[in-house]
Amino acid sequence: MTDETKNPSTRDVLKVALLGCGTVGAQVAHTLLTQHEDLAAKSGCALELVGIAVRDASLPRPGIPDELLTEDPVTLVADSGADIVIELIGGIEPARRLILSAIEHGASVVTANKALLAKHGEEIYTAAEREGVDIYYEAAVAGAIPIVRPLRESLVGDQILAVMGIVNGTTNYILDKMTTEHQDFATALATAQKLGFAEADPTADIEGFDAASKAAILASLAYHSTVRIDDVYREGITGVTSEDITAAELADCVIKLLAVARLDDEGRIEVRVHPVMVPHAHPLAMVSGANNAIFIEAANAGRLMFMGPGAGGSPTASAVTGDLVTVARNRLRGVENPAHSVYQGLQIAPMRQTRTRYHLRFQVADQPGVLAAVAGLLAQHRVSIHSVHQHAERLEDRPDLAVLSMVTHTAREADVMACITELEKTSYVHGQVRFMRVEGV
Amino acid sequence: MTDETKNPSTRDVLKVALLGCGTVGAQVAHTLLTQHEDLAAKSGCALELVGIAVRDASLPRPGIPDELLTEDPVTLVADSGADIVIELIGGIEPARRLILSAIEHGASVVTANKALLAKHGEEIYTAAEREGVDIYYEAAVAGAIPIVRPLRESLVGDQILAVMGIVNGTTNYILDKMTTEHQDFATALATAQKLGFAEADPTADIEGFDAASKAAILASLAYHSTVRIDDVYREGITGVTSEDITAAELADCVIKLLAVARLDDEGRIEVRVHPVMVPHAHPLAMVSGANNAIFIEAANAGRLMFMGPGAGGSPTASAVTGDLVTVARNRLRGVENPAHSVYQGLQIAPMRQTRTRYHLRFQVADQPGVLAAVAGLLAQHRVSIHSVHQHAERLEDRPDLAVLSMVTHTAREADVMACITELEKTSYVHGQVRFMRVEGV
Repeated sequence: MTDETKNPSTRDVLKVALLGCGTVGAQVAHTLLTQHEDLAAKSGCALELVGIAVRDASLPRPGIPDELLTEDPVTLVADSGADIVIELIGGIEPARRLILSAIEHGASVVTANKALLAKHGEEIYTAAEREGVDIYYEAAVAGAIPIVRPLRESLVGDQILAVMGIVNGTTNYILDKMTTEHQDFATALATAQKLGFAEADPTADIEGFDAASKAAILASLAYHSTVRIDDVYREGITGVTSEDITAAELADCVIKLLAVARLDDEGRIEVRVHPVMVPHAHPLAMVSGANNAIFIEAANAGRLMFMGPGAGGSPTASAVTGDLVTVARNRLRGVENPAHSVYQGLQIAPMRQTRTRYHLRFQVADQPGVLAAVAGLLAQHRVSIHSVHQHAERLEDRPDLAVLSMVTHTAREADVMACITELEKTSYVHGQVRFMRVEGV
Repeated sequence: MTDETKNPSTRDVLKVALLGCGTVGAQVAHTLLTQHEDLAAKSGCALELVGIAVRDASLPRPGIPDELLTEDPVTLVADSGADIVIELIGGIEPARRLILSAIEHGASVVTANKALLAKHGEEIYTAAEREGVDIYYEAAVAGAIPIVRPLRESLVGDQILAVMGIVNGTTNYILDKMTTEHQDFATALATAQKLGFAEADPTADIEGFDAASKAAILASLAYHSTVRIDDVYREGITGVTSEDITAAELADCVIKLLAVARLDDEGRIEVRVHPVMVPHAHPLAMVSGANNAIFIEAANAGRLMFMGPGAGGSPTASAVTGDLVTVARNRLRGVENPAHSVYQGLQIAPMRQTRTRYHLRFQVADQPGVLAAVAGLLAQHRVSIHSVHQHAERLEDRPDLAVLSMVTHTAREADVMACITELEKTSYVHGQVRFMRVEGV
């Protein structure tokens, strides 16, 4: 970094380079081009947009001068003298190389790229720390809901016991439709696609990959440790059936896809993404539609929840612009934010050793002694039952069977899985045992 | 400020002085005394507690060494060489003089003192900026719910359209009891006092003074302008009756004491605290018990809400400790946070010119033409009716009267007050017109 960069008194303008000009990028560009005075008042100096890297510079882009556009992001980052590079192209490469190049050239970086941070965060944070530049990424998790600063700063003096987030709007929308309008998964997905809440290829959302990236970032922030997407246990919502939705309602719960990061009894990090039954009384249960929410339980602060729109051009642009102003302020003062800290270096708990509650549902022979047998089998595996419900309705074609559903007390994943395997082998359990984890009790 | 203070390389310890050792102070002291390593890892250097100013140093304080206690806060601030002063004594004086003295001696300040900031914030922020030290006050609004940083940093690139907060746990608890358990105000207050949710002298809470302080701080942060408690229109909840609660339920609303800060059409700040009817569907409606919540509507970020416990020793201590770590980090790097910015310098809108919806309720002669007369009278004052409800139940002693309730479209306060005065003078309106403002529609 040059002396000029470090010396606040010599700067009256900071140069900003933008990589990507999709929905969010175009809005950020528009803000930079039209709200000069407001941004200058907030940042402390003028912010000059020096270039926008796009895939096809010949496309019409209303309100954006042609001379700002380039199809060569590598040169823009290396030669424009940018103080701040905003990366909004997404994906792993070339985003990773461009961000690392920006850092090497002494630029601070603002990004919304959760996939990249969840995979190569450590490399990027380390490079930023080495070069003494900022890396800000509020938009990477839960859109414009401020969550990175609260975890990194406001709650830094507290101990985070658990973070649970609805961090994917698409899956929340689908589950909401399945619950409130009794649509099946395929219909709800088709509705979401039609209304633009799900992409043509919805895999990243419905299989939980997007949520897993965010879970890695949240866990890493909450526990000051390196957590990568590969550390995150992941299940999507494609297996959630209308029967599961009904079973959740009977248990006074709703089904949500949650990203969970929790400190276990041995000081390791549980980090997982999967469908969860959440009691109606829990704040996360009322987060509807494509909204996101982050629920935090801290030793002193207690139970906090932040909610809002989790995606969309405007909210994401708001988060990016907030980061831009913060980074600009830091740059003017010649400092960077405390690096992304991993001083705790906690281990990740294997999924089989995580502990939570479980909702089990299965058909049993309707005869005396069956419930005792089930309870006995569970007890052998140190799984105790919190509540049992025997469904009044009979199965039409099998009047000799009854449907049992039960919620366990907190138990170890491996023990519950062993119970399920054994239950399915008994003579009195008919067919599969459906299970779903329960959180927020 | 000495060169030593400004030079990060020469510091391996920062000195902390604590003013006040009540519930929150004792917990902060305990954290400083027992969590050395964790605080050092988070801050970047050791934090040494050099003294605690208390009213009576002879009282037993378990876990706190006697030699740290002093009854002379003035000398502690002036002579201890403290880098950071934490003010938790509350009230205006001597807190104001001590904070100003700390700033003059080059110390950064962490405080939870909303009353002081709402009254003398400008003087304190100006002094801090002049001396190049930090002033942090996350605990002053909504306990441990991070709201100061989100407004000051995360959303700084956005335009805040409105902030609405449940910022007083005592009144939320009382209104919740009145709603869910049909207690009258006096009974609910007595319950709150018995359970420690209200103080023996509850005036500051139930008359809205505490909420008004927080409204001033929130408005000031959201609109980068100086807003003092005297600028805040204030009504408490002592006038809320069981009949109001029932009327709210009929309108599918709940009554909350809200702190509202909003940008009006002329670019002025509306800032007010009063009971409000909030529709059940609004996120603020579900904030129960003594919880707090801040709802923010921003041009780009959309509708965000933060909720959690608004008071109590542990949450407040969490917020204070988070501020302490941030201030310590800044000090080590030789910088201070961007000063509390008032660059927008917006005007405050007079209460009579604020605009919102109104719920009106009154008895009328049950005869043809009365509704037309009411609507005509309102229309003359540019107040239009959104919905009307004529209550089916008759008044036992006056079978000739009916009860009308109605919700207006957005109207000007002065116009609605004029309508009420005129309605009460007509021959067909019997007795008083009850009104309550409606928000969140």
